[in-house]
Amino acid sequence: MDRADALRADPHAIARLAGQAGARQLVWEDGLPAIAEDGSLLWQDVSAPELFLGLDGDEPRFAAIPESVEGYRAAYGTMANLADEQAPLFAAALSLGGWHSRHRFCASCGRETEIVRGGWSRSCAACGAEHYPRVDPVVIMLAEHDGSVLLGRQPHYPERRYSALAGFVEAGETIEAAVARELHEEAGIRVTNVNYLASQPWPFPSSLMIGCRAEALQSELTIDTAELEDARWFTRDEVAASIADPDGGPFQPPPRFAIARTLLERWLAA
Amino acid sequence: MDRADALRADPHAIARLAGQAGARQLVWEDGLPAIAEDGSLLWQDVSAPELFLGLDGDEPRFAAIPESVEGYRAAYGTMANLADEQAPLFAAALSLGGWHSRHRFCASCGRETEIVRGGWSRSCAACGAEHYPRVDPVVIMLAEHDGSVLLGRQPHYPERRYSALAGFVEAGETIEAAVARELHEEAGIRVTNVNYLASQPWPFPSSLMIGCRAEALQSELTIDTAELEDARWFTRDEVAASIADPDGGPFQPPPRFAIARTLLERWLAA
Repeated sequence: MDRADALRADPHAIARLAGQAGARQLVWEDGLPAIAEDGSLLWQDVSAPELFLGLDGDEPRFAAIPESVEGYRAAYGTMANLADEQAPLFAAALSLGGWHSRHRFCASCGRETEIVRGGWSRSCAACGAEHYPRVDPVVIMLAEHDGSVLLGRQPHYPERRYSALAGFVEAGETIEAAVARELHEEAGIRVTNVNYLASQPWPFPSSLMIGCRAEALQSELTIDTAELEDARWFTRDEVAASIADPDGGPFQPPPRFAIARTLLERWLAA
Repeated sequence: MDRADALRADPHAIARLAGQAGARQLVWEDGLPAIAEDGSLLWQDVSAPELFLGLDGDEPRFAAIPESVEGYRAAYGTMANLADEQAPLFAAALSLGGWHSRHRFCASCGRETEIVRGGWSRSCAACGAEHYPRVDPVVIMLAEHDGSVLLGRQPHYPERRYSALAGFVEAGETIEAAVARELHEEAGIRVTNVNYLASQPWPFPSSLMIGCRAEALQSELTIDTAELEDARWFTRDEVAASIADPDGGPFQPPPRFAIARTLLERWLAA
């Protein structure tokens, strides 16, 4: 899939692509991109080409702006069926569609804005401001100590689920500073040697998950109970047993499509 | 400097801190945080504690929301005088202050919003939406090929300046995918083995610069002249000579306080 973003600046090119044979439009279902049984995204004829998602080979791909995207809980189940190679497009459509549905007005002057650049921007005719879709960087990390790894539980998690701690990167922070701050705030630990491992777009609503690991300087935890229901250290054996047998192991690991799972699997393999 | 963000949720705690002995408020000068001759930020008595920046030891630090932040060109000169350890606070204040000055209205319904959480959020009484300050992830990268490194020139750069190519991470992208897309769009090259090196907050207006390197699969360039005035490969000797003698070397390297400079220095040292 080619985002073909050089074309976005030309409204005539976008209109021509929308009328082209082979052009397709994403199907929204309960506020989420619909997924076929084979794990691919579902497409229909073009009727409202508001968001230009790019070119799949020669074939233009569009989406309408959904009324709202409220299907987050449903999405976690749905995503289990999504083919891996379709995940970036699912994330792009959902992030972008959701952003438009929540950003119809100019934050600078309060007037209604209009869609421009094939849906990759909104423009305010009243004050001239241009607004771009948000991508919010989030750090998600494994702290290690004495061969164990720190995982936590948020109150809304499914039963027995433990996962990597995470938090938004704030203005004025490096990735490494955000990892250290979040681990100190949520679990009361100081860390060193923060390393980046992998990233993943996460469209709930529009995050860039930045996966890291860090070495904890202590094992004593002070848990911020406003954020976490629990946090604890798990040994390598406990993590391996949980991934091998999610229901019978010591805890329910994060799902296959989440970067927290990737971080745990890499930690086991290292 | 401790962001002390657990305190943000309590407006009484914030008000108490603002009245405390030792509380100080940032000085804005021409739309930028003012910098003293010794490279530290300038502070004054608290008069409009709209943004709670955190605790410096026991001493609360605040900023007012500036009318606007328009001093970007001035900032590049100013930042040369900024002490390294003050850079995160400079970036936090400028990003946050600028965000408030451009986001007084609710993007969801168009009404005026109010400052909450010590300035780390705005809330809409009309529709209930909560809006958080933006942090926009940007990839900035060195592509390598045959022992040379790819640098480019944007039209607004100072004379003879070449620097690392960069671009915003889009919805639905990993960091690695954004690096590959930007290098293909701007320079026409395909790359492999994208690696993360370092990050830096960059408050113009509110970016998280994510520094990477990548291996180019080709040396032939196709330059996107809408983005770049020029791009070319520089040898290790040329980069070393430019850093040793910015005015006499083959090109003017990026300034000391920019992550592009860090990337080049690490590349030379590797």
